[in-house]
Amino acid sequence: MAIILGDNQYGKAENRVVRIYRDSARHEIRDLNVSTALRGPFEPAYLDGNQTNVLPTDTQKNTAFAFAKSHGVETIEKFGLDLARHFVHDVDPVVGARIEIEEYAWERAVVDGVEHDHTWLRKGQEIRTAAVTVDASGEHVVGGLKDLVLLKSTGSEFAGFLEDEYTTLQETHDRVMATSLVAQWRFTSVDVDWDATYAGIKQIMVKQFATLQSLALQQTLWHMGRAVLEAYPFIAEVRLKAPNKHHFVVDLSPFGLDNPGEVFIAADRPYGLIEATVLRDDAPDAGDAWRISAGLA
Amino acid sequence: MAIILGDNQYGKAENRVVRIYRDSARHEIRDLNVSTALRGPFEPAYLDGNQTNVLPTDTQKNTAFAFAKSHGVETIEKFGLDLARHFVHDVDPVVGARIEIEEYAWERAVVDGVEHDHTWLRKGQEIRTAAVTVDASGEHVVGGLKDLVLLKSTGSEFAGFLEDEYTTLQETHDRVMATSLVAQWRFTSVDVDWDATYAGIKQIMVKQFATLQSLALQQTLWHMGRAVLEAYPFIAEVRLKAPNKHHFVVDLSPFGLDNPGEVFIAADRPYGLIEATVLRDDAPDAGDAWRISAGLA
Amino acid sequence: MAIILGDNQYGKAENRVVRIYRDSARHEIRDLNVSTALRGPFEPAYLDGNQTNVLPTDTQKNTAFAFAKSHGVETIEKFGLDLARHFVHDVDPVVGARIEIEEYAWERAVVDGVEHDHTWLRKGQEIRTAAVTVDASGEHVVGGLKDLVLLKSTGSEFAGFLEDEYTTLQETHDRVMATSLVAQWRFTSVDVDWDATYAGIKQIMVKQFATLQSLALQQTLWHMGRAVLEAYPFIAEVRLKAPNKHHFVVDLSPFGLDNPGEVFIAADRPYGLIEATVLRDDAPDAGDAWRISAGLA
Amino acid sequence: MAIILGDNQYGKAENRVVRIYRDSARHEIRDLNVSTALRGPFEPAYLDGNQTNVLPTDTQKNTAFAFAKSHGVETIEKFGLDLARHFVHDVDPVVGARIEIEEYAWERAVVDGVEHDHTWLRKGQEIRTAAVTVDASGEHVVGGLKDLVLLKSTGSEFAGFLEDEYTTLQETHDRVMATSLVAQWRFTSVDVDWDATYAGIKQIMVKQFATLQSLALQQTLWHMGRAVLEAYPFIAEVRLKAPNKHHFVVDLSPFGLDNPGEVFIAADRPYGLIEATVLRDDAPDAGDAWRISAGLA
Repeated sequence: MAIILGDNQYGKAENRVVRIYRDSARHEIRDLNVSTALRGPFEPAYLDGNQTNVLPTDTQKNTAFAFAKSHGVETIEKFGLDLARHFVHDVDPVVGARIEIEEYAWERAVVDGVEHDHTWLRKGQEIRTAAVTVDASGEHVVGGLKDLVLLKSTGSEFAGFLEDEYTTLQETHDRVMATSLVAQWRFTSVDVDWDATYAGIKQIMVKQFATLQSLALQQTLWHMGRAVLEAYPFIAEVRLKAPNKHHFVVDLSPFGLDNPGEVFIAADRPYGLIEATVLRDDAPDAGDAWRISAGLA
Repeated sequence: MAIILGDNQYGKAENRVVRIYRDSARHEIRDLNVSTALRGPFEPAYLDGNQTNVLPTDTQKNTAFAFAKSHGVETIEKFGLDLARHFVHDVDPVVGARIEIEEYAWERAVVDGVEHDHTWLRKGQEIRTAAVTVDASGEHVVGGLKDLVLLKSTGSEFAGFLEDEYTTLQETHDRVMATSLVAQWRFTSVDVDWDATYAGIKQIMVKQFATLQSLALQQTLWHMGRAVLEAYPFIAEVRLKAPNKHHFVVDLSPFGLDNPGEVFIAADRPYGLIEATVLRDDAPDAGDAWRISAGLA
Repeated sequence: MAIILGDNQYGKAENRVVRIYRDSARHEIRDLNVSTALRGPFEPAYLDGNQTNVLPTDTQKNTAFAFAKSHGVETIEKFGLDLARHFVHDVDPVVGARIEIEEYAWERAVVDGVEHDHTWLRKGQEIRTAAVTVDASGEHVVGGLKDLVLLKSTGSEFAGFLEDEYTTLQETHDRVMATSLVAQWRFTSVDVDWDATYAGIKQIMVKQFATLQSLALQQTLWHMGRAVLEAYPFIAEVRLKAPNKHHFVVDLSPFGLDNPGEVFIAADRPYGLIEATVLRDDAPDAGDAWRISAGLA
Repeated sequence: MAIILGDNQYGKAENRVVRIYRDSARHEIRDLNVSTALRGPFEPAYLDGNQTNVLPTDTQKNTAFAFAKSHGVETIEKFGLDLARHFVHDVDPVVGARIEIEEYAWERAVVDGVEHDHTWLRKGQEIRTAAVTVDASGEHVVGGLKDLVLLKSTGSEFAGFLEDEYTTLQETHDRVMATSLVAQWRFTSVDVDWDATYAGIKQIMVKQFATLQSLALQQTLWHMGRAVLEAYPFIAEVRLKAPNKHHFVVDLSPFGLDNPGEVFIAADRPYGLIEATVLRDDAPDAGDAWRISAGLA
């Protein structure tokens, strides 16, 4: 028996890169949170403290900022590919790179009815995400979003469920359904109109949430994933994580008041949590596309 | 010498009241965080544990939810007044009430180009606030907003400042200026079109931020407050709190790259913090309008 | 009628100053979060963008770090006084300074039963606070703590309270009482053994929380404040803010289980919130000791 | 080609279970955050909204609270096993259960030098974690901790690293090293003294952090994992995630001050992030021990 080093990676997390384009009077802004991680022959750093193969995380930070200038930030998917390819191709010992990026959206200030050239309000809605992995298994791009908070005030049911001796829940055929959606989708191509695809996927997910008469949050998630896959042949799978943000009807009868689904208390904890993958049965191998880390559980 | 009880109040904080209007197929939503606090002759509860005068915080919670049904939630300023008046007028020992409310905005989902009847996305932008106080000093409404994140990529300078032996900062005549604005404004009337005023104030503040060639964040704040007071005679004062969310130009010269205000690192801490009041010199007395608590410093 | 500038201040918030003493092999650590704010004749900066009187917040930051070396960090009360006096006495236009400091406690790692010389674990318990104000009203020190989470599993009641038509709460003579205490105390001297006083006050507050048969959280707060004032003649007042962190008894009867105060659900929101001041009736004037800002409500 | 449902699970997250033992005057407290998730034949819920096999998350919540009474909370590892076994063995369609638990530690209040019977202060230090999976692959227990914040003021170096054209970092042979450790360890037995093992592992990790002359955070992590595996034959692997919480030496030379490792600024972002697995080369198969969800990347 021996004790050995298993999966490992290291990098610089949460580089807050802000890129302003000021080539004309009408500036543009891209606001990112960039995390880079490298994989490779780093065993000597662990076992002996030998850094010969270790590109400092400080260097990774410098690279992220330098690339924002030299390569620009067109989309986070493209920027992630630029960085990942660089680390794997240009830095000799590195055999794999994982780049995770969040993008915060801004909207132009409107002044006297006109969009302003160089002032923005942070939108504050969902955060767009990308996770790019380049290694021996290929080039993998996972797009995504998080913190998309959705609520429907009707069109949601929950009934006919399994009951055991711990079940006290009543069935309902009209409830509030709300979630803060996290979704990720795996591309099978890197030749994609990233912005248009992102906009389309968000639109599809919102539409499914809104229009499906939901018999369970599970069903809603399935149809979100299914519809995305039907629309985009270059997407192989969609993964979804959706807290059921409970809105409980408040019992107002002690105060002589009826409450037919009008007054709710939004609860914090606990919350339901539904996680699902929707994929093509002939999806190409994911390689390390979904491998996030050394594997904390 | 004696030890005595000074300022005190108690209440129920952060009641997450969600009100759905479903009188037609096109539902409406109001999403609030309501905190209530009462002031009055509560000394026996402190000194002797005698609760005779103490309306439980649980009852205050019930009242907030019941009023969402019985009085409705037109605006948070009005809802705050409804609750404050009730506690002071209807609950005998209570002599003062302070109601603080946050409102989270939602926008309708757009499905196939049409706004959906009962599905929303949380906007995620600024939070609207109200602080209503009713007591012997009168009825006071303070409107406000927070978490309005603004950024301009040019049109901001900082130069000509005082220098001492600890000064190393360089002057600049073109920098990124960004803040997460907190603003509050004191009304001198309770007969106000609350929604229109809120929208107008936000618009004015955004316009001042965008259009002023700023020589300091202080100057920007002044003009925000000034412009609001000029537009609304029934507002007596505006208070502003603005972190200077630093965006530092990254030095890319070690990598042979020029960086004329294109690549920035958004810093977390420390940050500048500017706080100011702008008011009319003939503003009526504020009474307890700004009194937030027993006075933590 | 004119529009004028009212209360204002500006500074650098949240300087994360870490000071290591390494004069011997046994190092010492002080871990602070320092915020400075200046008051004075800054109207030109607001009205005209004229910075002549404005010491940059960047300079304030430099000063905080430089003083950590030149003056050392004995206690946060003393360090706050050092900084405040410097700004008011040494920087000509400044007439008032407000220094707020948080301190994070560390405990030495214990290795093979022995305290280690240069390794620590962050304690993670309460945060010690100081708020020092120096201006024409004098030198004011407010000590304090926050995030001190206390819980007692019995010895707490709530009964005999006022009831109205919105009251549904049942009386109880045995409940869990828990809070995350915020406390601040105003010194009337700057010639104090700051560390010993802090330790003594914390001990007194914990003892009162533990040993009083509590008829209300209000009563517990009163006795905390009272006991501190009785012990320390150089403290003039104590201000307390205590969320009632509700622990609700879970109804297990549907599952055939009794629950005599054994299984609770710890709730997040809403929560009760009790705020009180306890003071001497002959306390000297507080001046600006409690003035925190330009006055957000 | 068909679109299919892949990995999925659902449950109730963050049940805040507080268990008081009051069999004698000296009470005991266990303070948990319990998340449960079930795996099994839930495809009909997704595809058709058919809930026949779906045990509501509300029932899972009830079960967690009921078990706190009926089975008690000895340790979180044992409590997790109790819950997981119940769901898999007693609820017919369920084939796998994943229980994740956090435990918050409390220490007894000390009053007049004596530990109090029923009052505690929340410790606030590291959070103990357990992740229990029961399914066809067996019974898996993963213990762990998070938020263990460690700092050493010397005994850490970083030199001899790889340099490329983006490298600007200087070598150092004496720096502050700090982290907020996350660690998880996989047991190969369920017949373990859970409390003693937890205490032992924490002690080992602290000792390695303190006593190793660290040439890199990687090396420190390796020795933490190695030492744990050497001490506990029933642990098969250790996974570690350690942010490098940078403490930068502040340049005080502009102020005529030397700074030989005495004054630091604690930075927020970006931060280094090191992740590693240390394991036995003959470790038994992990089955689903580390499978956390449907697989968000």
